[in-house]
Amino acid sequence: MSYIFSFHSPVEAFFGFDSIEKIKELMAPYKTIGIVSGRTSLEATGMKAFLEAELADRSLHFFSEVEENPSINTIIRGGAFMRSARCEAVIAVGGGSPLDAAKSIAVFATNNDSFYELLAKKDMPNKPLPVLAVPTTCGTGSEMNAYSIITDAEKTDKINFSKPCMFPKWAVLDPGLLKTLNERTLLATVFDAFTHSMEGLISLRANPFSDMCAMTSMELILATLSAVEDLKDERALVNFMYASSLAGTVILHTGTTLLHSLGYYLTNNKKIHHGTANAMLLPCFMEMLREKGVQKFNVIPSLFEKHRFDINLWLERLGAEPLSSVLTMDEKPVMAAYALSKPNMKSTPFEADADYVVKKLV
Amino acid sequence: MSYIFSFHSPVEAFFGFDSIEKIKELMAPYKTIGIVSGRTSLEATGMKAFLEAELADRSLHFFSEVEENPSINTIIRGGAFMRSARCEAVIAVGGGSPLDAAKSIAVFATNNDSFYELLAKKDMPNKPLPVLAVPTTCGTGSEMNAYSIITDAEKTDKINFSKPCMFPKWAVLDPGLLKTLNERTLLATVFDAFTHSMEGLISLRANPFSDMCAMTSMELILATLSAVEDLKDERALVNFMYASSLAGTVILHTGTTLLHSLGYYLTNNKKIHHGTANAMLLPCFMEMLREKGVQKFNVIPSLFEKHRFDINLWLERLGAEPLSSVLTMDEKPVMAAYALSKPNMKSTPFEADADYVVKKLV
Repeated sequence: MSYIFSFHSPVEAFFGFDSIEKIKELMAPYKTIGIVSGRTSLEATGMKAFLEAELADRSLHFFSEVEENPSINTIIRGGAFMRSARCEAVIAVGGGSPLDAAKSIAVFATNNDSFYELLAKKDMPNKPLPVLAVPTTCGTGSEMNAYSIITDAEKTDKINFSKPCMFPKWAVLDPGLLKTLNERTLLATVFDAFTHSMEGLISLRANPFSDMCAMTSMELILATLSAVEDLKDERALVNFMYASSLAGTVILHTGTTLLHSLGYYLTNNKKIHHGTANAMLLPCFMEMLREKGVQKFNVIPSLFEKHRFDINLWLERLGAEPLSSVLTMDEKPVMAAYALSKPNMKSTPFEADADYVVKKLV
Repeated sequence: MSYIFSFHSPVEAFFGFDSIEKIKELMAPYKTIGIVSGRTSLEATGMKAFLEAELADRSLHFFSEVEENPSINTIIRGGAFMRSARCEAVIAVGGGSPLDAAKSIAVFATNNDSFYELLAKKDMPNKPLPVLAVPTTCGTGSEMNAYSIITDAEKTDKINFSKPCMFPKWAVLDPGLLKTLNERTLLATVFDAFTHSMEGLISLRANPFSDMCAMTSMELILATLSAVEDLKDERALVNFMYASSLAGTVILHTGTTLLHSLGYYLTNNKKIHHGTANAMLLPCFMEMLREKGVQKFNVIPSLFEKHRFDINLWLERLGAEPLSSVLTMDEKPVMAAYALSKPNMKSTPFEADADYVVKKLV
């Protein structure tokens, strides 16, 4: 073994209310810019009008077709769109789906190849377009890492298309953009961030740098949830946005674990929001960690107690259904087998078979 | 104001005993490589023989002339050396001086301009050579940031030659390289790292990301100093090396403050080691922070108490002389005026005049 761990956090991030005003300066070198988003958030957050005003002297090309859980087809079409418009840079605006999609689209903009052909390569033949990521949720952390989770609609599967060249160059983290989220979506994304940090902490790939970020992020989320009445209080939004980006740096180092791959099944097959799915799985995953004697897990119940955090109350506030009412007895083994087959098991700190997982899915 | 703070840690760092074995893989794309070092550490640490064996199939060009507190002249000569050898990448091996020098040499290798001409520009006309930094001390943190402190020998002054393009691309952090340091030098560099984190914490440019790194780094240093009998115990070396790199990320965000500019005077005029100078100034700088009511300072005495850290005992172990026996009464006002004139005051969290500083220099 030539080293124990590696660490970095390469995305230059600008944080704070009104940090979107930094976009104009960052985009100064580019005349033709592609903007990747979902179908509604770009207008709902006011970002469309903002970008059109701030970048009035540039040629802007809007690709606002990214669906939740973006498909390979969307990535290929997005790449062709950027190529034909001769875009020099990409601004990604939205939650995890548009941000993940934009990183892949920036690759296919400069590489007119098939998805699976590039998936198999480590280095891309041509450098991707530079990406500026502007998250409008506080869960994904996608703005801080090179992950791009793409759905193969034919196989009903999620593919991790992630290459070393795919880090956004910049992230603009403006908590003001969270104001238009409804409370449930906001909370679902906060739970996504929390699971990133918690899974990061207990991941087999954890290191002192990711642990530092994970602990800071979890403390901040739990302290904020326990302190504020109104989740959309400005002080809460600041903490959620920062904690979510730190959690994005955590999973850059650690990957995610079995909780996330179980969650993928709920999203793929039950159309449950990614963050809500992770929150629903948190109690049973914590029970697995406890039962399997994962030592680093011990800090989590202490953190919950310190912040008087009752997970069941929050699942109720989130409107999450119990796993048992979502999954039939026949589905549980299928879900377990799917989750155990994903690469996430490589970073999960215990071994488990499908029978064990099925028993815990309550 | 368009954002409150920005954060990143762009250097890809590989940490651990034997991490030097990673160098071969990182250098794979380059046939002609320049190696920047001081006059002795390259051989003393065994790195010369190691690099010659690992990179036997490359053309290696050794520039082993970097003096302590490298001069403009050295940088210019180093740049010309790299140019004439047609080097494609630079490996920097050593303490702060060779690492700082290498970052500037990599700029002048591709830019045949005058020092002060480039100092005045933000963007360099040509991209510098990629730099791989291999620290052999645990104080500078230079491997994690873009700072390059260069001495103008004619003006007896230190210049901060630092550009956004000057981050090392990689750092290899191998605690095994610390084994050849004598205890006093090891301890001096540890104090340098400690002051980076402490000054970073109380800096006006501090942010939540730098605070996280600073607190982690200080805790690790104090806990290790209080726990180990032999400073060269392998567990201690691991902690010192990691804490020092974290502290390098801290000052990337915060800069250094008045303590460092006072220390420059002691190094420039009294030839006192940079880390020892910082350690000697720690008690009086802490007294300034206490007296000026700097709120964030309060955590430092608590940390000292928690780890039963007695600064005076450590100054003795370091062989540091009292300030009063090093400085004459006439020199103190000159030192104060010099330090107050440096840009470091912009990040120092209190105002002070020369009279005040002179009174505290005891």
